[in-house]
Amino acid sequence: MRQPLPHKDKQKVPEPTLRRLPWYLSNAKLLKQQGELYVSSTEISKRINIDASQIAKDLSYVNISGRTRVGYEVNALIDVLEEFLGFSQCHKAVLFGVGSLGGALLRDSGLRHFGLEIVAAFDINPVLIGTSLNDIPIFHPDTFAEKMQTLDVNIGVLTVPIEIAQQITDCMINGGIKAVWNFTPFRIRVPENIVVQNTSLYAHLALMFNRLNFNEDHL
Amino acid sequence: MRQPLPHKDKQKVPEPTLRRLPWYLSNAKLLKQQGELYVSSTEISKRINIDASQIAKDLSYVNISGRTRVGYEVNALIDVLEEFLGFSQCHKAVLFGVGSLGGALLRDSGLRHFGLEIVAAFDINPVLIGTSLNDIPIFHPDTFAEKMQTLDVNIGVLTVPIEIAQQITDCMINGGIKAVWNFTPFRIRVPENIVVQNTSLYAHLALMFNRLNFNEDHL
Repeated sequence: MRQPLPHKDKQKVPEPTLRRLPWYLSNAKLLKQQGELYVSSTEISKRINIDASQIAKDLSYVNISGRTRVGYEVNALIDVLEEFLGFSQCHKAVLFGVGSLGGALLRDSGLRHFGLEIVAAFDINPVLIGTSLNDIPIFHPDTFAEKMQTLDVNIGVLTVPIEIAQQITDCMINGGIKAVWNFTPFRIRVPENIVVQNTSLYAHLALMFNRLNFNEDHL
Repeated sequence: MRQPLPHKDKQKVPEPTLRRLPWYLSNAKLLKQQGELYVSSTEISKRINIDASQIAKDLSYVNISGRTRVGYEVNALIDVLEEFLGFSQCHKAVLFGVGSLGGALLRDSGLRHFGLEIVAAFDINPVLIGTSLNDIPIFHPDTFAEKMQTLDVNIGVLTVPIEIAQQITDCMINGGIKAVWNFTPFRIRVPENIVVQNTSLYAHLALMFNRLNFNEDHL
């Protein structure tokens, strides 16, 4: 069963806003640790170097209102942001490809604190099948369709080699997956109603290397 | 000693181009596996659903020219893209914070194939200090400045708790780090000449959850 949707309303939130909201959340958490009860958008602005009016605009999407002169209540800000961002819900997922990156994600229990629970993994490696990693069982991909009957899952994490990235994506979608978290550097194609979130560590590395070379050359 | 810079010239490549180039690389690798010798931008376009003229424009930044009617040589395209993206160079890095995500990155040997070699890790956990993970030694952060004298490193990977993210960033930069790969959801502040690459898995999760909820609501 899915929880009721936590959003204030169902408008499509702009991606840049969604990318900034976790920054406000982490700052609010830090302020809480420091014993602060209230924070204004001007204070957040000083701390993270984003325009205060932008922060106020971003926060207008979430269900919180600041009080004149005191700002937002820190505890409420944390709760509302965690709920809005989906971190306080439990989203179940499966993972395909228990290689070095896939294995690393299965071991990373931090994901669970942000609302993602990987409940099963799939790999063709006979050494892995039947074992478990961080209490997550590993199965043969052939059993996926059958497992999907009992698992309440709509997210698939893709950490397979590029040569089977598209095939495994198709297999996940046929099995009922609605969102694919794609860690491969491969651009997968999906039907229009399927969400793809690309997180290629390698693309980020390339960006960083390029900027570093550029800076070194302009010293 | 740093290798000579591999770039054709030192123009600043647009970020969207840098984000797409790894897609062309993974496609070229796949074509190579399939025994193809040549590929045109039209063919790449069909495979990954990006406009052919955009692909040709993106590839104009790298040192390769296609031949009329046959297109790009697949092997040359792979070599040139890997070099351009920095994947064929060895960039040494240190990592701060051997928690679940930090530990996962130390174990992920895939990064090495894309040009990043983590040579040392730092953590205050006494159980970890003096041990190693995937042959990477773990030290106390107090020894960082001293280690930097002998390590030929200019990249720092940041996987610490948010409450010390800024402090550790400052410490890395004081020690000579020129680029910070920030995996925390915290927006760190750095001097203008320092590169920051933000890779917050949690921000990507939030994006995915939001899109998924939006789709579910509009079925």
